[in-house]
Amino acid sequence: MTDNFTLHEDPRSGNCYKIKLTAALLGIPLELRDYDIMKGETKTVEFLGKINRHGSIPVLQVGDRFLPESNAACWYLAVGSPLIPTDRFEQAEMLRWMFFEQYSHEPNIATLRFWLQYVGEANLSPQQTAQIMAKRIAGTDALALMDEHLVGREWFVGTSMTLADIALYAYTHVAEAGGFALRDYHHVCAWLGRVAAAPRFVTMGGHASAI
Amino acid sequence: MTDNFTLHEDPRSGNCYKIKLTAALLGIPLELRDYDIMKGETKTVEFLGKINRHGSIPVLQVGDRFLPESNAACWYLAVGSPLIPTDRFEQAEMLRWMFFEQYSHEPNIATLRFWLQYVGEANLSPQQTAQIMAKRIAGTDALALMDEHLVGREWFVGTSMTLADIALYAYTHVAEAGGFALRDYHHVCAWLGRVAAAPRFVTMGGHASAI
Repeated sequence: MTDNFTLHEDPRSGNCYKIKLTAALLGIPLELRDYDIMKGETKTVEFLGKINRHGSIPVLQVGDRFLPESNAACWYLAVGSPLIPTDRFEQAEMLRWMFFEQYSHEPNIATLRFWLQYVGEANLSPQQTAQIMAKRIAGTDALALMDEHLVGREWFVGTSMTLADIALYAYTHVAEAGGFALRDYHHVCAWLGRVAAAPRFVTMGGHASAI
Repeated sequence: MTDNFTLHEDPRSGNCYKIKLTAALLGIPLELRDYDIMKGETKTVEFLGKINRHGSIPVLQVGDRFLPESNAACWYLAVGSPLIPTDRFEQAEMLRWMFFEQYSHEPNIATLRFWLQYVGEANLSPQQTAQIMAKRIAGTDALALMDEHLVGREWFVGTSMTLADIALYAYTHVAEAGGFALRDYHHVCAWLGRVAAAPRFVTMGGHASAI
């Protein structure tokens, strides 16, 4: 590995945490460059012109190239490692859960966390307030689907941790901040514990696990 | 290839079309099993119990195994083909655009098409109506980002068609049905023409291209 990696991130973002957790589990050093998304620091002319025209983080910088989208960055870091199954069907199943995470999980569970914990319910627009119930229902459905899938399984795909577990862990383990009751999902809770017990695990705050 | 493939689909769905287009370009036969999502045919006890607990299509059936999520199914079919770059960075860039498609493109452009063309604006809930403007803005942003990315490029990643082009083509080429003015995006229009000119291309209706 001769590339230098810089992660352009906001430390409060679960999408950024996915990449830091993947790198930590694989022992890959990452330089961190922090931005405050609440202050619009990813919408500056410089950021849009050089880092990501889409104005979003995370962006993984690989040498002088820039890779947006958290799950794509995790893939890049994990190619050739045990975090990506080599079996063709299991590899596709892993991507299935990563696309599920971005389509059915993150827009509900992460968005409610962002709205309730960081923006504040009193500061939401009427359009956002009107979406809370639909996001609550869809997020609950996502957690229920995960819980049912984990019956009799230790990991989302196959018999060891993959990027699917990392992608889903990021916003699931802080779902309470969005008003979701994790205790209702016993299999999810047991799986969260397994992820956190992995060798070289780091918390969202960047600390090594106490386990 | 000894697997038998069955695609559980609704022919009006762009997500299903992605898989049919991938299979057509690769010369892979697919059996089709149609469901009418407007009639709840993917919410039956049988569908939920056997095909997909999440109640959504498409689902690619591989022998007796079931793979939901359109982009994961495309990946499964295309492993080892020229539709997936072998270069590590290009492969991750391809996934970047596929995750972009599911997070920033489909929920805006495909959803407005579904609401306006199939549900009908008069039948939307007040919550849905309140979201139209935000989805219009976000969908327009997605098309503008695509258009800018395509300046000086023939394809989204590298120098030939990949799954990123297929994933983005599916709902972009019918974006007018959601009220988006494709003529505003010259580079996108030229790229749509390149995709449709590919050997073995099929239309969303399942027909071979006239080109």
